[in-house]
Amino acid sequence: MIQIFTTGGTIDKVYFDANSEFEVGHSVLPELLSESNIHEGYRLQELMRKDSLEMDDKDREIILNAVRACEYQQILITHGTDTMANTAAVLADLKEKTIVLVGAMQPARMRRTDTTFNIGFAWASVQLLPPGVYIAMNGEVFAAGAVRKNLKAQRFERT
Amino acid sequence: MIQIFTTGGTIDKVYFDANSEFEVGHSVLPELLSESNIHEGYRLQELMRKDSLEMDDKDREIILNAVRACEYQQILITHGTDTMANTAAVLADLKEKTIVLVGAMQPARMRRTDTTFNIGFAWASVQLLPPGVYIAMNGEVFAAGAVRKNLKAQRFERT
Amino acid sequence: MIQIFTTGGTIDKVYFDANSEFEVGHSVLPELLSESNIHEGYRLQELMRKDSLEMDDKDREIILNAVRACEYQQILITHGTDTMANTAAVLADLKEKTIVLVGAMQPARMRRTDTTFNIGFAWASVQLLPPGVYIAMNGEVFAAGAVRKNLKAQRFERT
Amino acid sequence: MIQIFTTGGTIDKVYFDANSEFEVGHSVLPELLSESNIHEGYRLQELMRKDSLEMDDKDREIILNAVRACEYQQILITHGTDTMANTAAVLADLKEKTIVLVGAMQPARMRRTDTTFNIGFAWASVQLLPPGVYIAMNGEVFAAGAVRKNLKAQRFERT
Repeated sequence: MIQIFTTGGTIDKVYFDANSEFEVGHSVLPELLSESNIHEGYRLQELMRKDSLEMDDKDREIILNAVRACEYQQILITHGTDTMANTAAVLADLKEKTIVLVGAMQPARMRRTDTTFNIGFAWASVQLLPPGVYIAMNGEVFAAGAVRKNLKAQRFERT
Repeated sequence: MIQIFTTGGTIDKVYFDANSEFEVGHSVLPELLSESNIHEGYRLQELMRKDSLEMDDKDREIILNAVRACEYQQILITHGTDTMANTAAVLADLKEKTIVLVGAMQPARMRRTDTTFNIGFAWASVQLLPPGVYIAMNGEVFAAGAVRKNLKAQRFERT
Repeated sequence: MIQIFTTGGTIDKVYFDANSEFEVGHSVLPELLSESNIHEGYRLQELMRKDSLEMDDKDREIILNAVRACEYQQILITHGTDTMANTAAVLADLKEKTIVLVGAMQPARMRRTDTTFNIGFAWASVQLLPPGVYIAMNGEVFAAGAVRKNLKAQRFERT
Repeated sequence: MIQIFTTGGTIDKVYFDANSEFEVGHSVLPELLSESNIHEGYRLQELMRKDSLEMDDKDREIILNAVRACEYQQILITHGTDTMANTAAVLADLKEKTIVLVGAMQPARMRRTDTTFNIGFAWASVQLLPPGVYIAMNGEVFAAGAVRKNLKAQRFERT
């Protein structure tokens, strides 16, 4: 069983015409997984709906506690990319579960998006990686604590 | 020959991960028309890239002048929906060209969008309507000066 | 009120992995219209699910009778493009209703398709054209009897 | 470096209006990977464009030889799902490379497709699995020789 925790970020953004605004909406993950023939074998829980630039220590505490309390061994966390490496570092001491953080540059609801590929990539990663904390972005797996988002290149890379 | 003037609004919004922002980008209309087998028979000119809530009298003056100066008889104007009726009213005295304003609730670049249908609808409208100024939204044609956007219902209706 | 009659053709084709085949499925039109904010003001009836190359005189008789019996003045017929001109010719004598035939080169269920634009275009055409029989394809309106599909160019043109 | 061999199947099917037919076209993989921010780190070679029901021993020989001759250690093979398990069995003795076969139930060019998720899933699998031959479908990894396609359920399962 894979536990998914959603925290917000780009993946679930929706365009609301009423405010000419793009905000985090309900998670598209169940629909995305269903379109790829995955209908069971996971639980999903929304922890928060935050742009990762707005996350603070309290938010990361919430994520850490949820991960610790989780009964499953395989955990997928969807997260904004801007401070994903920070959250990964906060979780880095957890040694007994396979924890994969994943995000996207383009919302799932866009016609052209990296979300679907990234979730597929993370879905395999969380099943195949040994216990530890990882970031799965742009088709690579990075160990927490040794990765950063290169803002200029708009990709993740090893530090 | 159909002249397209783009002014911004929702249709051409792009998601920029760098600023977690959704802004007006270059026009998708040529790509959208090409996907529908239309490769010629029109000219496109970008007048501005504005959310229609940010438009002022000067902007509407620019649009009015562009329409007046245009050598073609059929003019399509893409425009934000929030103040489309205002711009239509400013143009309402023009009697010699068929002028159709069109917009959308969801950007063209979204997986689910009303943009494509609306542009197709407007493409027929601008060819079939007699000279005058019109709004083409939610599958209906409205005469300028007798239409408003119902914010609650998120649709256009006759006043 | 607009009456939609679906007859098959490319628009509603679905890919069935079980037979590695692409066949006409249930109509996507209600979903397409809904995505464009149109939820009422029309009736839809499926007459048949035929590739237009497979249509014969009996099929065209069915279509003709349905159109004659229809209580509404505005009729949209979705139809395969290969013999759309033939069906239009069969209907050409009907003078009291506005009848628009429309189809597509790419199914609605494809990521890149002309279906949505074509339906929007036809939606305006059926409301704005005077009574008569027309084909609405590649962004133009053609009168029945004076149009054909140019197979090489893959577009409709005046004869 | 990941080597991709494409053999046909559902992923790369294109709808050709000219013959009302759905046939294997040029590979969409480079475009799909690019949309997910992957622009390098792989080579792609098309071996054939076959529906897997049409594959015979000679075709599987071609695939086997290409895999053997490949200088890279990580190999992704896109393949029709109907006889993917057969091809996996033919490759099963290869012990020194990580070979992952992947396919899809819906072509990549459809609006709703499992292709993108499956490729993302396979992209991680080929990097994380130890040498051997595997099938990556419906969000699971299967070892060659112990998997079959359940036609009724339209999914892969362990035998």
